[in-house]
Amino acid sequence: MALGAEQGMAGLPTITAVAQVAGVSVATASRALHGGGASAATAERVRLVAEQLGYRPNAVARALQGGTIGQIAMIVPDAANPVYARMTSAVQHELAADDRHLLVAQAQDPADVAAAIGRFGPSTIDGLIVVPLRPEPQVLEALDAARVPTVVIGSLPLTAVHGAVGADSRAGVQLAIDHLVAQGAQRIAFVNGPVDTTPGRMRLEGYRLALDAAGLDFDPALVVAADDFTHAAALPAIDALLERSARSFDAIVAANDLIAFAALRVLSDAGIAVPGDCLVVGMDDTELAQMAIPSLTSVDLGAEARGTLAAQQLLASLRGEADAISHATVVPRLVVRESSTRRDRP
Amino acid sequence: MALGAEQGMAGLPTITAVAQVAGVSVATASRALHGGGASAATAERVRLVAEQLGYRPNAVARALQGGTIGQIAMIVPDAANPVYARMTSAVQHELAADDRHLLVAQAQDPADVAAAIGRFGPSTIDGLIVVPLRPEPQVLEALDAARVPTVVIGSLPLTAVHGAVGADSRAGVQLAIDHLVAQGAQRIAFVNGPVDTTPGRMRLEGYRLALDAAGLDFDPALVVAADDFTHAAALPAIDALLERSARSFDAIVAANDLIAFAALRVLSDAGIAVPGDCLVVGMDDTELAQMAIPSLTSVDLGAEARGTLAAQQLLASLRGEADAISHATVVPRLVVRESSTRRDRP
Repeated sequence: MALGAEQGMAGLPTITAVAQVAGVSVATASRALHGGGASAATAERVRLVAEQLGYRPNAVARALQGGTIGQIAMIVPDAANPVYARMTSAVQHELAADDRHLLVAQAQDPADVAAAIGRFGPSTIDGLIVVPLRPEPQVLEALDAARVPTVVIGSLPLTAVHGAVGADSRAGVQLAIDHLVAQGAQRIAFVNGPVDTTPGRMRLEGYRLALDAAGLDFDPALVVAADDFTHAAALPAIDALLERSARSFDAIVAANDLIAFAALRVLSDAGIAVPGDCLVVGMDDTELAQMAIPSLTSVDLGAEARGTLAAQQLLASLRGEADAISHATVVPRLVVRESSTRRDRP
Repeated sequence: MALGAEQGMAGLPTITAVAQVAGVSVATASRALHGGGASAATAERVRLVAEQLGYRPNAVARALQGGTIGQIAMIVPDAANPVYARMTSAVQHELAADDRHLLVAQAQDPADVAAAIGRFGPSTIDGLIVVPLRPEPQVLEALDAARVPTVVIGSLPLTAVHGAVGADSRAGVQLAIDHLVAQGAQRIAFVNGPVDTTPGRMRLEGYRLALDAAGLDFDPALVVAADDFTHAAALPAIDALLERSARSFDAIVAANDLIAFAALRVLSDAGIAVPGDCLVVGMDDTELAQMAIPSLTSVDLGAEARGTLAAQQLLASLRGEADAISHATVVPRLVVRESSTRRDRP
């Protein structure tokens, strides 16, 4: 039966093909087929095309395979980033209550993520949780063609066919900047990760919005982007920030805790005291934030909650309880520690 | 065929049963069946019992199933410890060259490790790499009964039926202590992880041996053990060390980098400067060692090399090239950074 489901799905048209033939966007096609805001005429056209092409949405695969292997797979971008350890632990905890087990695969490059999604079929796993960083077409196509029930952790443009749990990166950066402004910061630098990733793009947007809201000017000399969301990639970016800005900043928001650690390192080497001369805020509130000296103020983007919600959505879908596909967003929360608290302020 | 291999192995006696009936230890039974130091008479008796009971070593399962799924699973104790991220990355890199993919499961409790080993069969994976912390009988039994070719990363007492790649924790601690003595340390404290784990036991042995070799007395007031190899578990242990020793130490060896980070935290809170007042050395040489301020001297126990060697052994076994089961040990290496280097020494 599991094998039948796999064979049944092979070679079938994707929703992208349906959208192309119907002359609508993939998002519209998805809404038309799964319920949502498409007009009646459009919905009818899309359904007709889908029928003619023999398109079968994921729900069919779900119903066919039933989900009884007991294993769930999760694809994360970087096993060395503790935010994913936190997320996978939450998923594992949630699955254990349902007597299912978690297997974690690491893939970040869009081609690798797409290939990994394609590898998992109903003969080896019951369901899939994917954490994609870059919303490339090949990743979206692979998600659309997934052979098992799938939940996305992230904010992709076209995930109407899957459940999704997102962070609110924009609001997270705004929390950080509001806090820094309240602490007296006037020139707040931003050390981002790659801007072609969804988190990188959203966090930069949040930075600009928050500066606006606080009445602070956007100064390009105060913004740098590391090539990756890692400590090693952030070091040269922060070196460049010191040079470009002539050290004129009084606070740094880092796009994650690994990057914040790199900021602590570069500032320490440059003789700039934290928090005395410069305040620092990280993001993700990983275990690293408590490990840093000074301990690191960090925005909790709900890694644990996202993992828990994604697992719950997937389990509901496996039990056939998920009538509607839901897109949840976890509200961020600022955790204030030593790195952003001026000891000498009244 | 894969299914046949699974069925063929079901219900077969383990090597433990063979050992019991033959009246020898499991280690002796394993040596008798796989070659090694058993006497001719003992070896003959064990082989006779094995034949009568219908015992089939893992090599049979290997030959039967062939290994063509393209997926390898790895069981690690703690996904949040960066040493395992380093290890799994090395494994993944090595497997990619053979077009095989890695799935990582997390399990530390012996019952969970044993259950995880038992879950993986030839219908879902080609082979298994297990990193067990505690050499409990149930883990050894599960390894013995593994249904796919398996390589152990660790130093279990009875891994004669599997390939194994170990660290030399003892020699690693000795490197740390020799270095600290050369830096002028006289009273070297040791913050261990749990001593019922193989790494915990070996590292404590290394500590005692190295003190002996350096002509330093063993003082129980200078040794504490955290309940787990984590930052959170190490904090109260190091608090206890400060109290018990009346701060009389001038150096700390930590059983891993997470514990060393906890030492940096507690020392900083207590106003004890590193490296000025106290030298600190960690183990595993994870990314954390470079991230720490001051950067952390750490013993590289070859996490990457162990991952690479384990993957190579497993791949050789899947290709049928592994005639002999090999047990490799990776030689440790000290990486000196700021935390153990007195700036004011001549």
